[in-house]
Amino acid sequence: MTTPLNERRIANAIRVLAMDAVQQANSGHPGAPMGMADIADVVWREFLNHNPTNPQWANRDRFVLSNGHGSMLHYALLHLSGYDLSIEDLKQFRQLHSKTPGHPELGYAPGIETTTGPLGQGIANAIGFALAERTLAAQFNKDDLKVVDHYTYCFLGDGCLMEGISHEVCSLAGTLGLGKLIAYYDDNGISIDGEVEGWFSDDTEQRFKAYGWQVLRVDGHDTDAIRQATVEAKAQTAQPTIIICKTIIGLGSPNKQGKEDCHGAPLGTDEIKLTREALGWEEEAFVIPKDVYSAWNAKDKGQAAESAWNDVFAQYQAKYPSEAAELLRRVQGDLPAEFLAQADAFIAETNAKAETIATRKASQNTLQAFGPLLPELLGGSADLAGSNLTLWKGCEGVQDNPAGNYVYYGVREFGMTAIANGVALHGGFIPYVATFLMFMEYARNAVRMSALMKQRVIHVYTHDSIGLGEDGPTHQPIEQIASLRGTPNLNTWRPADTVETAIAWKSALERKDGPTALILSRQNLPFQSRSEAQIQDAAKGGYVLAQEKGELKAIIIATGSEISVAMDAYVQLEGVRVVSMPCAEEFMKQDAAYRESVLPSQIRARVAVEAAHVDYWWKFVGLDGKVIGMTTYGESAPAKDLFKHFGITSDAVVEAVKSLTA
Amino acid sequence: MTTPLNERRIANAIRVLAMDAVQQANSGHPGAPMGMADIADVVWREFLNHNPTNPQWANRDRFVLSNGHGSMLHYALLHLSGYDLSIEDLKQFRQLHSKTPGHPELGYAPGIETTTGPLGQGIANAIGFALAERTLAAQFNKDDLKVVDHYTYCFLGDGCLMEGISHEVCSLAGTLGLGKLIAYYDDNGISIDGEVEGWFSDDTEQRFKAYGWQVLRVDGHDTDAIRQATVEAKAQTAQPTIIICKTIIGLGSPNKQGKEDCHGAPLGTDEIKLTREALGWEEEAFVIPKDVYSAWNAKDKGQAAESAWNDVFAQYQAKYPSEAAELLRRVQGDLPAEFLAQADAFIAETNAKAETIATRKASQNTLQAFGPLLPELLGGSADLAGSNLTLWKGCEGVQDNPAGNYVYYGVREFGMTAIANGVALHGGFIPYVATFLMFMEYARNAVRMSALMKQRVIHVYTHDSIGLGEDGPTHQPIEQIASLRGTPNLNTWRPADTVETAIAWKSALERKDGPTALILSRQNLPFQSRSEAQIQDAAKGGYVLAQEKGELKAIIIATGSEISVAMDAYVQLEGVRVVSMPCAEEFMKQDAAYRESVLPSQIRARVAVEAAHVDYWWKFVGLDGKVIGMTTYGESAPAKDLFKHFGITSDAVVEAVKSLTA
Repeated sequence: MTTPLNERRIANAIRVLAMDAVQQANSGHPGAPMGMADIADVVWREFLNHNPTNPQWANRDRFVLSNGHGSMLHYALLHLSGYDLSIEDLKQFRQLHSKTPGHPELGYAPGIETTTGPLGQGIANAIGFALAERTLAAQFNKDDLKVVDHYTYCFLGDGCLMEGISHEVCSLAGTLGLGKLIAYYDDNGISIDGEVEGWFSDDTEQRFKAYGWQVLRVDGHDTDAIRQATVEAKAQTAQPTIIICKTIIGLGSPNKQGKEDCHGAPLGTDEIKLTREALGWEEEAFVIPKDVYSAWNAKDKGQAAESAWNDVFAQYQAKYPSEAAELLRRVQGDLPAEFLAQADAFIAETNAKAETIATRKASQNTLQAFGPLLPELLGGSADLAGSNLTLWKGCEGVQDNPAGNYVYYGVREFGMTAIANGVALHGGFIPYVATFLMFMEYARNAVRMSALMKQRVIHVYTHDSIGLGEDGPTHQPIEQIASLRGTPNLNTWRPADTVETAIAWKSALERKDGPTALILSRQNLPFQSRSEAQIQDAAKGGYVLAQEKGELKAIIIATGSEISVAMDAYVQLEGVRVVSMPCAEEFMKQDAAYRESVLPSQIRARVAVEAAHVDYWWKFVGLDGKVIGMTTYGESAPAKDLFKHFGITSDAVVEAVKSLTA
Repeated sequence: MTTPLNERRIANAIRVLAMDAVQQANSGHPGAPMGMADIADVVWREFLNHNPTNPQWANRDRFVLSNGHGSMLHYALLHLSGYDLSIEDLKQFRQLHSKTPGHPELGYAPGIETTTGPLGQGIANAIGFALAERTLAAQFNKDDLKVVDHYTYCFLGDGCLMEGISHEVCSLAGTLGLGKLIAYYDDNGISIDGEVEGWFSDDTEQRFKAYGWQVLRVDGHDTDAIRQATVEAKAQTAQPTIIICKTIIGLGSPNKQGKEDCHGAPLGTDEIKLTREALGWEEEAFVIPKDVYSAWNAKDKGQAAESAWNDVFAQYQAKYPSEAAELLRRVQGDLPAEFLAQADAFIAETNAKAETIATRKASQNTLQAFGPLLPELLGGSADLAGSNLTLWKGCEGVQDNPAGNYVYYGVREFGMTAIANGVALHGGFIPYVATFLMFMEYARNAVRMSALMKQRVIHVYTHDSIGLGEDGPTHQPIEQIASLRGTPNLNTWRPADTVETAIAWKSALERKDGPTALILSRQNLPFQSRSEAQIQDAAKGGYVLAQEKGELKAIIIATGSEISVAMDAYVQLEGVRVVSMPCAEEFMKQDAAYRESVLPSQIRARVAVEAAHVDYWWKFVGLDGKVIGMTTYGESAPAKDLFKHFGITSDAVVEAVKSLTA
């Protein structure tokens, strides 16, 4: 540290805003903003290419605060730089309906690129941004005109680096050589439990060299060193760079800096007074001197930058009009105009073919049909391409071709999913990622984050039940589908055959404001006949697949592989209808009249059958109904033996219906 | 590789058993067993200290196959070494009710120490074994008598090393210096998608050196080198060792070795024939020559080893009778004889105190009372000790004192939980581990594994709802409690106050055959008065907390922080009872008469209230009931504002009851 603390007025603006806002909220994390203020000063004022007046400018550099609890750092930066985030907004830190929630949340403050807080996922998102940038650039840039050309900057802390996901994604980023990613590690030696040496003694430099990164080390309070390192990082385009910044947490607080006390609690009014003195900061809380505002203000510079890019893009439009239109379409997230009609044609064709195949295979067939129409698809699997069936003939790995459309993610479910979130957030792509349904659990919180952030990420989960057979209970999902269905803003489709699978994919692709999970079978599932009207209704998530013979007395509800079980029971029964419910969430969004037409309220003899945990279905069958499904773990055996062993059979359904209608 | 393949008859016994059993099952993974056969030959015949006649011998070396899909390797080893696993059992590989399921499952074949298959968790379990061994040794060994003294051997593959959890646990193992852990990395360069170089290019040697491990490299088919490396590994007692073994997957299969084709599918009868030729193996499938059996048989050596240890233990018993008795008690997993009475006394005392505190604080108070009684507790938190309140006054970190009883796990939820599974499996400890309920999701599959394996692991989850306030939606659980409740064999307790918290802890500790999740509030919860009979009934998981005034017309069901909401509604209503349901799983295990006494079936006016996803509760309120809870994500704001904002209030409960009884 060369400059005395009280001469760092620019950076100190962050320190005081952070400590004052946390104090006002009586909750929050002052330590990281105060410790990283000097790094932020250099990165934001000297390097970050952004336009506060237009946070959505497509070619902006992306900035991710992976240590999201330091949110006041980001809010202070946005406010000072000239984003539409007022000092009043900062005063409302952590209050209901404010633009400044406790962690950076997408859609609240302008300029927040992703929601962070769950540690390690921010750096994963950042890697997704960098991957999206490189891929989009390779797909669209011309030798003479680079319309996609930005960096991704990420701040992260010890917590991010302890989390396993940091290994998954940084290892992959190294393999992919994502050279336009620059990470700043806030190496302050402190986590919530105290000095990290007792539980975190990695040689992080060596670790990241093992991943193939460029590793630089600086004093995180030496602005010259940070500047020099950032220049080196930008110059190295073949490798991602991590700059290990030795910092003092809470720098400026005479009694709390360098200690865990300042990590996650207000400093207190006395300490704030002392900190003001140490910083030589004379203004009241939330007052920033004019010259400091000026020094931070990035509006003119940002407008100029965007304007220069607009010129480049105008040239691109003139020279490559169709590419330009396509790029705009993709960045806006619109599907090609003709896609929906083409998708419907494929569904009709699929219906005509009437194939009995596994829904994972039906999914691949759908990808084969839709893939050529949708260059925005960026697929992938966690080392299960041949099992998830996520490759189609037009797939090219980005490992081999930077303009490709498929990522071999390796055995990294969580990293894959969080990277896909970053790809979706970046824009220009619809990512789909795949693993076995069971190992969704490894990725679970990133699935949730895709839903919380309303991102169009398509989660493909095959091997969806005991129907996977011999791999046994560690691989056989029981409670997983219910967990997905309970996730707000996630659509979970479990299609019964080829037609429902194609419908599910179409729904997932059309859905611009949230993710979809596709739950697919390993084993073959019998094709079900449907009328044109039923095909229309299937898109509503629940519909009558088989109409009752005679007066309606009972309803069987099923999904996926159990539709054929239900249909086998159906033919043995009178007055019973079969409701296929591939997506209960979509069904619940339909109007009451439609729902009533499918599930008339007065019919209480209801049997649900699904090779998954029974508890989800009480919602639909009530206290008088029955659910045939799983309440225990599975076993290792051929699938047929297992369905019999666990009593998920048409006989059991028939018996249950009879017991309710007797 | 020095010895020609056809002269490796001992190791080849594994190769043929693996390929033949997979062929017979028409499903499975021959590649890893065939590739690791030479390593297994050295480790099992020359180093592993075990007794096939008594797989439960307390001081045996532990062996973990972290790449669990190679299960036939382990089954072959157990069979050949003389465990009670017959050739007929091997023929039943992957069949229903066999002892040889697709992945190694605890409780099926003798000698399986942990269930593996979910990648990366085996090495985490192994680290748990090594941690348990070191801690138990430090607590019980005497300078002259070492009664706890064994190694932990772990095989693992590329998949394990790509998974993030491998980072979490190997980093911690390095920091802890677990010198008696020896890992063999099957570095075959192949994963399911093909040659790993396109997605996994880590310098694993450098990576593990960064963690502080001893790293050795060998040709995994050179038995002399493997032997020498193992000797070096055993000699290094201050660091864990990883031996990077360069191997050829499926070695012996002329056309498939070294390729992904042999990873996860039968070789096929033609290739098996060619492999037999290449191996110089003339016997039919499942026939092992007598001399090969003799070479493998470890029964005499194992009996001698156990017998020698028995002598040591007899001396220990003579010299340190109380320590010996205590060690036996702990290894058997029995609670101290006086514990239950002491626990009941504490519950009575807690009831008398009638404190209104957060249940996380009530949990700490319970730990403070129970901790001194239970030296088998091995606690920990993922860097949230001060928030989860998992430290009590007698806690000492194993980082500082190897005989300690607390692990500062760092920000490693998944690793922590899987390590705790290993600790529980080892015996001698009851591990409890903690994080915020939301970040249970990071650990989710290890929580499931603790339930699948029926291990007494206590999962402490605080900050259980929107009641945590300002940290916002990334930290506010919605669907997480339902996910835990749906997990077979997991008990999920969400206590309402100090008394229910103490009861929950007691239940968790008494439960020998499965894990418990304790769901605790950040915020204070009002104490509820209870009779002695109600305290008894609370242990049943659900009971009438407030009896109806007049004839019963409606039931309010609540848990945790919403009990006070329900009670506030209760006082405004007639003919309504409040059912507290801290553990629905325990309640469902009660007999029908008790359940009926709490929730009479004819009462259909039922309102459930819980600040969590509504869907779980339809099971209890049915189609005619109402659920007051969450269906969306939370927000960042003070807790009080949030309960009002999301309508989880006594007014809403009153209104709901009135609407149902009107």
